[in-house]
Amino acid sequence: MLKIRPLELDTLRENVVVLARGCRDLRPERMAGSRKVEVSAGGRTLYATIIIADDGLLAEDEAGLPLPLYRRLGAPAGALVEVAPARPPASLDAVRRKIHGETLSAAELKGVIGDLVTHAYSDMEIAAFLIACAAFMTPEETLWLTEAMVVSGKTLKWPRPLIADKHCIGGVPGNRTSLIVAPIVAAHGLLFPKTSSRAITSPAGTADTMEIFAKVDLAEDAMRAVVDRCGACIVWGGRVDLSPADDVLISVERPLSIDTAEQMVASILSKKKAAGSTHLVLDIPVGPKVKVKGAEQALRLRKLFEYVGERMGLSLDILLTDGSRPIGRGVGPVLEARDVWQVLSGDPAAPQDLADKAVKLAGRILEFDPALPGGRGEARARELLQSGVALAKMEAIIEAQGANSAPPKLGALVHEVLAGADGRVAMQDCEQLCQIARLAGAPTDPGAGLDLLKGVGETVRQGEPLYRIHGMDQADFDFAREAAEIDPGVAVVRP
Amino acid sequence: MLKIRPLELDTLRENVVVLARGCRDLRPERMAGSRKVEVSAGGRTLYATIIIADDGLLAEDEAGLPLPLYRRLGAPAGALVEVAPARPPASLDAVRRKIHGETLSAAELKGVIGDLVTHAYSDMEIAAFLIACAAFMTPEETLWLTEAMVVSGKTLKWPRPLIADKHCIGGVPGNRTSLIVAPIVAAHGLLFPKTSSRAITSPAGTADTMEIFAKVDLAEDAMRAVVDRCGACIVWGGRVDLSPADDVLISVERPLSIDTAEQMVASILSKKKAAGSTHLVLDIPVGPKVKVKGAEQALRLRKLFEYVGERMGLSLDILLTDGSRPIGRGVGPVLEARDVWQVLSGDPAAPQDLADKAVKLAGRILEFDPALPGGRGEARARELLQSGVALAKMEAIIEAQGANSAPPKLGALVHEVLAGADGRVAMQDCEQLCQIARLAGAPTDPGAGLDLLKGVGETVRQGEPLYRIHGMDQADFDFAREAAEIDPGVAVVRP
Repeated sequence: MLKIRPLELDTLRENVVVLARGCRDLRPERMAGSRKVEVSAGGRTLYATIIIADDGLLAEDEAGLPLPLYRRLGAPAGALVEVAPARPPASLDAVRRKIHGETLSAAELKGVIGDLVTHAYSDMEIAAFLIACAAFMTPEETLWLTEAMVVSGKTLKWPRPLIADKHCIGGVPGNRTSLIVAPIVAAHGLLFPKTSSRAITSPAGTADTMEIFAKVDLAEDAMRAVVDRCGACIVWGGRVDLSPADDVLISVERPLSIDTAEQMVASILSKKKAAGSTHLVLDIPVGPKVKVKGAEQALRLRKLFEYVGERMGLSLDILLTDGSRPIGRGVGPVLEARDVWQVLSGDPAAPQDLADKAVKLAGRILEFDPALPGGRGEARARELLQSGVALAKMEAIIEAQGANSAPPKLGALVHEVLAGADGRVAMQDCEQLCQIARLAGAPTDPGAGLDLLKGVGETVRQGEPLYRIHGMDQADFDFAREAAEIDPGVAVVRP
Repeated sequence: MLKIRPLELDTLRENVVVLARGCRDLRPERMAGSRKVEVSAGGRTLYATIIIADDGLLAEDEAGLPLPLYRRLGAPAGALVEVAPARPPASLDAVRRKIHGETLSAAELKGVIGDLVTHAYSDMEIAAFLIACAAFMTPEETLWLTEAMVVSGKTLKWPRPLIADKHCIGGVPGNRTSLIVAPIVAAHGLLFPKTSSRAITSPAGTADTMEIFAKVDLAEDAMRAVVDRCGACIVWGGRVDLSPADDVLISVERPLSIDTAEQMVASILSKKKAAGSTHLVLDIPVGPKVKVKGAEQALRLRKLFEYVGERMGLSLDILLTDGSRPIGRGVGPVLEARDVWQVLSGDPAAPQDLADKAVKLAGRILEFDPALPGGRGEARARELLQSGVALAKMEAIIEAQGANSAPPKLGALVHEVLAGADGRVAMQDCEQLCQIARLAGAPTDPGAGLDLLKGVGETVRQGEPLYRIHGMDQADFDFAREAAEIDPGVAVVRP
C-alpha cells in the first residue's frame, strides 16, 4: 500500500500515476511492456498509466496522483492506495473475437460498454473495438450496442408521453436550426428538452452558439426547471451524463475519423434515448463534402436508423436535406447567433435559407402532435415564427437558463476573401469553409469565424468580397488567411 | 520558442512533454481533444503527448522533457525547442482508406511504415492500422508491408552468398532448439549469424536463455567479430535496429493479442531479411493451444510465407511440427539452459525430444548446403552433435560473445505440483504451463520457471510430482502456485 500524494499536473482525460523508481513492491520496470495499472482506494478502482520518477520527487512509499486521477479516485492526500498491474478487462475477449470477424451477443456488447465507461480500456483497445466494428457489424449488433450505451449512464424521465427532439448529423457550416426549431415547437405546446453537444470537429456546436445568448452548462435540476417553465431548453449535454460510453468512443473516433453508419446510429440514438426523447426528426444532409455523399449511402443509413429506432421505441422522421452548400451566412458561434436572431426577430436581412429549413424541420416535428390535422405542421411552424411568438418563447428560454450578460463580440481582426474575376458563385465547399473557420479560432474564440457574403448562384465582380474571416487571435487568424489563400473554398465561374 | 528543461521522469517508450499552464503561446487547453504535439529542436522533430503543470514546476517559457524524449531529441538543457500542435501524419489517409476496406499500394504502405518509425502515430492509430489490416489484407499488401518494414531500419550484409537462419513462430514451452542448432550449423561450416528476441509473452526467448551463458547485448561490430571467429552468434536483435517498425507494431499487437498470418509473416520475414539471411528454416508448431491449431490454418500460413519469402529472395523450408506438448523439461531461462547444455554435452539425462527436434531442424538447414549430398543433412547434424564438435563450437561462441561469469541460479523457492490420482499423463497444456511459468517470474527472474518431471504418456502414482515450480520472488511464486491449483495444465487419466 502506498500513500496518496496529489500532484499539480493535468493529464487531461488520461489517468496517470507517478511512482518512484525505487518503489520496489511494484517492480515498475517489469511493466515496461504494459504501463497500465489498477489504482484502488476506498473501494474504488481506476485504471491508470504509470510514469516513473527518478529525481526524488516522490518517496518510495508514495503514489503521485495528477489531478484528474486524484479527483476521479476521490480519496484524500495521505490515504492508502493500492497500485497493481492491470488485469485485462474480461470483455476484451469479445473484442478479440470481433476482430476475428465474429458476431457479438447483446450480453457481450454490454460487457464491452460496461468496461469502457470505467476507463478499463486503453485508447488502443478502444480503437481496436471500433475498427473491428467498422469492418462488419450486423443491425442486431448495432441495436445491442445502442442499448448498452443507453444503460451505461443516466436516463432522463419526463412527465409527458411525447417528448420531441431533432438532430442533424452535421457537416454543413452555419446550419444552426435547433435554436429556431426549439422555440417554435415549445410555442406550439410540445415538450422539447434539447441536450446538445459542443463542437468537436466543426466550427460551432448548438451548445456553443446557444452560449452566446445564455448559460448552457446546466445540471439536471436546473435543466428541468427551465423545461417546466418554458416547455423547452437548449443545454449542453455534457453535464447530464447521458450515454457516457458515447463520449469515450467519440474521443477515439474523432482523431481516427471513424464515421461509420453503425457508430453514428448508436451514438445519436443512445444519446436521444437517454435524454428521454420519444419522437425525433433527423436531418441528414447529402452532398459531395459532407458525411453522406449520395442516395445509396443515405438509404442505407436511413434504414439502419429506422431498424434501431423502432426497436428502441423511438418514432423517427428522417429528412434528407441539401448538404451541398452552407446554410445561413455566419459560421462560428457569434456569427451563427446573429443569423438565428435575425430569423427569430423577422429582420429583413435574415438569411432566408436558414429560416426556411428551420420552419420545415419544426413543421415535421409538429406533425408528431396527434391534435394537429395532418399536413398542417409547416404552416403552423411558419405562423409561430412570423407572429413573433417563437421570438418571445426564445427570450423566455434564455432568461430561464440565465441570459449571458456579457456576450462575446465579433472578432475584430477582419480579412476579406475577394473574387478573382467577374462571374457567378458555382460552388461553396462545406469542408474547406469549416476548416478555415476552425483555423480562425472557432469555436474556442466565439467571435471567430466566417461571414459568407455571396451564396451559390449569386453574381460577383472581380475584387468583390466573397466572405469575411473574423479572428480574435493573431496567429490563428493568420493561419486561416493562409489556408484561404491556398484554397478559398468558393469557386467563381465566368457566366 | 521554449527552453528545454530535462525532467527526471521515465515515461518508458512514450514521448511526453510537460508545459506550464500559463504557457500562453501554446494555448494548451485547446489541445484537450488531442494531446499530441510536435517537439522540434536542432532540425529534429518528434511527436509527444503533453501534460500540463499547474504548480510552478516549470516557467512559462520552459518545456519540461522527461528523459526518454530528452534523449531521443538530443538537444541540450536550455536549448530552444518549438512545441506545436501535431499535424496528423499524411499517411493516416491511407489508414483511413484501409479501414474502409480498400487495398493499399506499395507506396502507401511505405508511407505508413515511414511515419510509424518516427513515432508519428499514436497507439490508437497504430491499433487502427493493425485491426484494419487484420480484417483483410492481400498477399501483395503483405509483401509490400514486409518490404517497407525492411527498409525502415538497418540491413546487415555478410561476405557469403548463403546465410542460414532458423525461426520458430512460438507457443511451445521449453522449445529452445536454436542454441543447439546454431553450433551444429556453424560446426558444419555454414554462416549462422542469429539475432533473436527476448520473451514478450512467453516465459523465455532465445536471447533470455543465451544470456544465462553469455552476453547477448552486442552492438553490430561486436556481433560481426563473433561471427567472423565462430561462424555463428546468438545475440539479442534489439541493439542492431533491424526492422524497427516491427517493434512499434509488436508493442501494440501484443496487448491486443493480434496474431494474424499477415502480421506474423511481415514481422518474421522483415527481421530475417534485414538480418541478411538468405536461407531460412521455419518451425511452425501445430496444436490445440498454440497459434496454428490445424492443417487448414497451417497450409494458409505456409503459402503466405512462401509467397512473400520467394518475392523477397529468401529460400524457405517450412516444417510443421508437433505443438501439442512442451519440448524438453525446463521452462524459463535457467531451466532451458540446463536442458540445452545436457543435449550439447551428451548427458544421459538430456531430454531426447529436444535433441531430436534440434537435430531435425539443423539437418534441414544443412540441406541448404550445395556441397552436401541430398538427404544427408540430418545424419550429418547428429554426427556433429554426438561427436562433441557442436559443444566445442558452442563453447567458442560463448567465449567470443563474453561468457557470463556469474550465471543466475535456479530459483530457491520450490513447489511441487502432484498427481491427484494414479494414471497416465494424457495432456500437457502449452498455454497454461507458459502462463504459470510467467507468473512464477520468468523471464524477468531467470531462475524462475517450471521443471517438467512427467511427459505425455508417462504413468504416475497419486502424490507423485508432475512438475516443480521454481521462483525467486515470494509474491510472484505465490501467484504461480495459486494458478497451478486452479488449473495445473496437466491432465492425468486412469489407465
